[in-house]
Amino acid sequence: MPSLPPGYSIRRTQPRDFENVVDTLRILTTVGDISREQFEDIVTYWNSTTINFHGKQIHAYHPRVILDGSGRVIATGTVFLERKIIHEGGLVGHVEDIAVAKDQQGKQLGLILIQHLTALAHEHGCYKVILDCDEKNVGFYEKCGYRRAGVEMDHRL
Amino acid sequence: MPSLPPGYSIRRTQPRDFENVVDTLRILTTVGDISREQFEDIVTYWNSTTINFHGKQIHAYHPRVILDGSGRVIATGTVFLERKIIHEGGLVGHVEDIAVAKDQQGKQLGLILIQHLTALAHEHGCYKVILDCDEKNVGFYEKCGYRRAGVEMDHRL
Ligand SMILES: CC(C)(COP(=O)(O)OP(=O)(O)OC[C@H]1O[C@@H](n2cnc3c(N)ncnc32)[C@H](O)[C@@H]1OP(=O)(O)O)[C@@H](O)C(=O)NCCC(=O)NCCS
Ligand SMILES: CC(C)(COP(=O)(O)OP(=O)(O)OC[C@H]1O[C@@H](n2cnc3c(N)ncnc32)[C@H](O)[C@@H]1OP(=O)(O)O)[C@@H](O)C(=O)NCCC(=O)NCCS
Repeated sequence: MPSLPPGYSIRRTQPRDFENVVDTLRILTTVGDISREQFEDIVTYWNSTTINFHGKQIHAYHPRVILDGSGRVIATGTVFLERKIIHEGGLVGHVEDIAVAKDQQGKQLGLILIQHLTALAHEHGCYKVILDCDEKNVGFYEKCGYRRAGVEMDHRL
Repeated sequence: MPSLPPGYSIRRTQPRDFENVVDTLRILTTVGDISREQFEDIVTYWNSTTINFHGKQIHAYHPRVILDGSGRVIATGTVFLERKIIHEGGLVGHVEDIAVAKDQQGKQLGLILIQHLTALAHEHGCYKVILDCDEKNVGFYEKCGYRRAGVEMDHRL
C-alpha cells in the first residue's frame, strides 16, 4: 500500500479550506460561483451531520483534503454514509467528487485518497462502498480495488 | 403521465410500516434479520435528518411507499439528497432501493414511483438525480426519463 510523499498529510476538510478546495474541484467539473460563506456553511453541515449506527454517533459525511509540504490543498474527495433498511439495516459508503490537482497527478495521490476513504467507510461498518465514474477512469478505480457493479443513470431538467 | 389505480396512494414511509416494507424489499435483495425496533430507528432517522438549503430546512431522505386500495404497502423506494460544493453548492438526488411487489409489477407503479421521487428531488432544487441499476433494468429507467451516465463501481471486503 503506497504512502504519502514526505511532508504531505491528509485530514478532514475544514471551513477554512475555501480557496484551495474550490480551485482543486474546478479540474473535476463546474463549480460555478460559490462564496466563502456558502462553502463554510456546507462544510459545517458536513462536519455536524451524524448517523446513529449500532449505538454510536458517526459522521454521515467524511470530506478529506490532502495537503502538500507547504500546507496547500492538492487533492480532495468525500465519502458519505447512507442508512438503509436492506442488509440488516446496513450502511453504504458513496465516494464523491474526487480531484487531484493537475500538477500532482500520477504520484499515487488519487489511489491513496480512494483507499483512505474506502477504509474509513468499511471501518464505520459499510457493507459496500460505491462510486460512479466515467468509462475512462474505470482502470484507475480497478487499481484502487473496485469492480464494475452496474450502470449509473441520471435525470436532469 | 400515468396515474395510480383508483384507491392506491403514495406517502412518506412511517415507522409503523415495518412488515410490509421489509417484505417488499425482499424481492430486491438481501434484507436479512431486521427487528421492528431497528426499522423504526432507521425510519425515524430518515424522517428527522434535514439539510439547510438556501435558507430552508428540507428532508435529506424522502422514503416513499405506495399502498393499494386495502392499505397494503405494494411498492417502496427512496431518494436522498446529497449536499455538494460543486455546481454552486448544489444538491444531487440519489434514488435507492426501488421495489414493486411481484404480483403488482407491470402496472406502471414502478414508473409512477420513480417519476414521483425524481420530481420531488428536482422540486427541492437538485440539479440532477442519479441511480445505479443492473444492465437488465436500463430500459425501465429510460422509460422513466433517465439516461446512461457512467459506470457504477463497488468495493466489498
Ligand atoms: C482520476 C484521478 C483521481 C487519478 O488520480 P492520480 O493521483 O492522478 O492517479 P494515481 O497516481 O493515484 O494513479 C494510481 C494508478 O492508477 C493509474 N491510473 C490513473 N488514472 C488512470 C486512468 N484514467 N485509467 C487507468 N489507470 C489510471 C495510474 O497509472 C496508477 O497506476 P500504477 O500504480 O500502476 O502506476 C486524477 O487524475 C484526477 O483528479 N483527474 C481529474 C478529475 C477526475 O476525473 N476525477 C474522477 C471523476 S470519476
Ligand atoms: C424494475 C421494477 C421496479 C419495475 O417496476 P414495474 O412496476 O414492474 O414496471 P412498470 O409497470 O412501471 O413499467 C414501466 C414501463 O417500463 C417497462 N419495463 C419494466 N421493466 C423493464 C425492464 N426491466 N426493461 C425494460 N423495460 C421495462 C414496462 O414494460 C413499462 O413499459 P410500457 O409503459 O411501455 O408498458 C420492478 O419490476 C421491480 O421491483 N423489480 C424487482 C426489483 C428490482 O429489480 N428493482 C430495481 C433495482 S435497480
